[in-house]
Amino acid sequence: MTTNATTVPAYAAPAAGAPLERTTIPRRPVGEHDVMIDIKFAGICHSDIHQARDGWGTGIYPMVPGHEIAGIVTEVGPGVTRFEAGDRVGVGCLVDSCRTCDNCAAGLEQYCTGGSVGTYNALGKDGEPTYGGYSSHIVVDERFTVRIPEGIALDEAAPLLCAGITLYSPLRHWKAGPGKKVAVVGLGGLGHMGVKIAHALGAEVTVLSQSLRKEADGLKLGADHYYATSDESVFEELAGTFDLIVSTVSAPLPLDRYLGLLRTDGAFVNVGAPEEPVSLNLFSVIGGRKTLAGSGIGGLPETQEMLDFCAEHGLGAEIEVISADRINEAYERVLASDVRYRFVIDTSTI
Amino acid sequence: MTTNATTVPAYAAPAAGAPLERTTIPRRPVGEHDVMIDIKFAGICHSDIHQARDGWGTGIYPMVPGHEIAGIVTEVGPGVTRFEAGDRVGVGCLVDSCRTCDNCAAGLEQYCTGGSVGTYNALGKDGEPTYGGYSSHIVVDERFTVRIPEGIALDEAAPLLCAGITLYSPLRHWKAGPGKKVAVVGLGGLGHMGVKIAHALGAEVTVLSQSLRKEADGLKLGADHYYATSDESVFEELAGTFDLIVSTVSAPLPLDRYLGLLRTDGAFVNVGAPEEPVSLNLFSVIGGRKTLAGSGIGGLPETQEMLDFCAEHGLGAEIEVISADRINEAYERVLASDVRYRFVIDTSTI
Repeated sequence: MTTNATTVPAYAAPAAGAPLERTTIPRRPVGEHDVMIDIKFAGICHSDIHQARDGWGTGIYPMVPGHEIAGIVTEVGPGVTRFEAGDRVGVGCLVDSCRTCDNCAAGLEQYCTGGSVGTYNALGKDGEPTYGGYSSHIVVDERFTVRIPEGIALDEAAPLLCAGITLYSPLRHWKAGPGKKVAVVGLGGLGHMGVKIAHALGAEVTVLSQSLRKEADGLKLGADHYYATSDESVFEELAGTFDLIVSTVSAPLPLDRYLGLLRTDGAFVNVGAPEEPVSLNLFSVIGGRKTLAGSGIGGLPETQEMLDFCAEHGLGAEIEVISADRINEAYERVLASDVRYRFVIDTSTI
Repeated sequence: MTTNATTVPAYAAPAAGAPLERTTIPRRPVGEHDVMIDIKFAGICHSDIHQARDGWGTGIYPMVPGHEIAGIVTEVGPGVTRFEAGDRVGVGCLVDSCRTCDNCAAGLEQYCTGGSVGTYNALGKDGEPTYGGYSSHIVVDERFTVRIPEGIALDEAAPLLCAGITLYSPLRHWKAGPGKKVAVVGLGGLGHMGVKIAHALGAEVTVLSQSLRKEADGLKLGADHYYATSDESVFEELAGTFDLIVSTVSAPLPLDRYLGLLRTDGAFVNVGAPEEPVSLNLFSVIGGRKTLAGSGIGGLPETQEMLDFCAEHGLGAEIEVISADRINEAYERVLASDVRYRFVIDTSTI
């Protein structure tokens, strides 16, 4: 068992907005409850780019992004009970939380009120910066490690750890299923998983996208209907239609119009959101007792449930696997919406 | 049985913004499923004033306001099965709906998608304007008539037909009850019923009011806590506290700050609302999976349930009974928030 910190290769942004480059980073010794993971694949999430470029002004540099991690356990600490070397595992957006608040106790670590620790660009409880999945190995407490079932290839599993759970959690919470009409706004890395999961849950799925450019893809992914929201008549045609709308876009939407697409007691749930405030007429929610809500990733138990569900239904992300030297190019393509639907880094190339 | 239309005295606004004055209006013949009600009391709702002054630009004049009606059945049509002469009954905001849409079928007539008919300032299915409770009698289909149990005095019951159900419905829908922390924003006609009902449901109740001016009243009505929102530190002190906040105010609130007062999975429900759009940062709902929602009055079954609940718990509105010649003065006092907590017209004085 490793008892000393190790140094491992990684891709890091050395400073805000600088291109990512190869470097080395320390990984802590494998502690009592830790697992050491040989990372095989790491997805590129839009928020990686945002944080690498210090879009929230909270960047810690050098920054190793990556919170969509899939790999194989190589070592476990003596107190680890759920994993052993050779296990296929994943790590998502969190590597620690307070573990004592009501939400942590309920397995809702994503809403930890005592202070959760992000997989990268955060400070761990040891005061050291956390480094993400764009590296060869990571050491993580088993509580924040999930099992990837055999049914999902590791490269297609990686994006499930953020994009997958971000959609699965609200779809389950707001009860997408048979007899329910669900719309997914935006068909990108998040949205395409929303379509797959909502369809697998048995809902009637509609994609609301700016254009019909990806219509064929959307229908192949499981959508029953596909509409371009650039066509204003869509808002009249679909008025009062949906039980649930999940918006994955970060552009400011005309919320009142989207709320008009909901049935009585319907919910419009934001998993993407613009940073600037949006405008809303509260009568849009009073008529029809509608809900405007939000949701962020998911807790550890639900992340495991999502992976098991995806394996059972043969769901993985649609991916384009790249070598590490193409990360900066991939970032530009993500920003240009030129990816169907997730870049995944083959971390053996780091 | 009356088979002809009757002419009855009423108070009406002859034109937009004009003072209300005594007049006479027609009431339709008592039809197959109708009841004729001898109105005893009619509450003055803030929206009466708004509509009498054409605040929504949809005024039909002369306008007889009043959708908080309590009285005694004097005649029934041959097809009426649920009421007979002498019954104590109430009529709220609706006197008809399409009766065939999913919501009507579910007893959610308040969200009828086929076209509901307001108790006043609307056109009935016969194309004739509806006239409200500021009159001596009204003819209403029994489906839109509810029973007022013996346990509630008719004058204290009248405001339950709008103010009571407007608060009861969201408190029930979002599960106010034992172990739940509920805040009511604003202590007026709506808010005071919210405090009474939430307390009777077993919730821990907090009033959030602009000042502490009505604190003693609030505590007497059943609130456990009372805070002045003019004190900005309240938003820090109470951060993450409430399972449910019901806002009864029509002033634009700083929504992001109020959403910060909710616990994980908490709901902020608007039953009052400003007409102009409000500003919202969607991250205020994403963190903690929060809900911003709305609710409007209630359906007929729930209105009956509310009256039965109020009777069982000895709840009525806090009222100031006035004669009809004081309606215009009462309007001014409502606008100046100078009423504790609802004016009720003794319609025998019309």
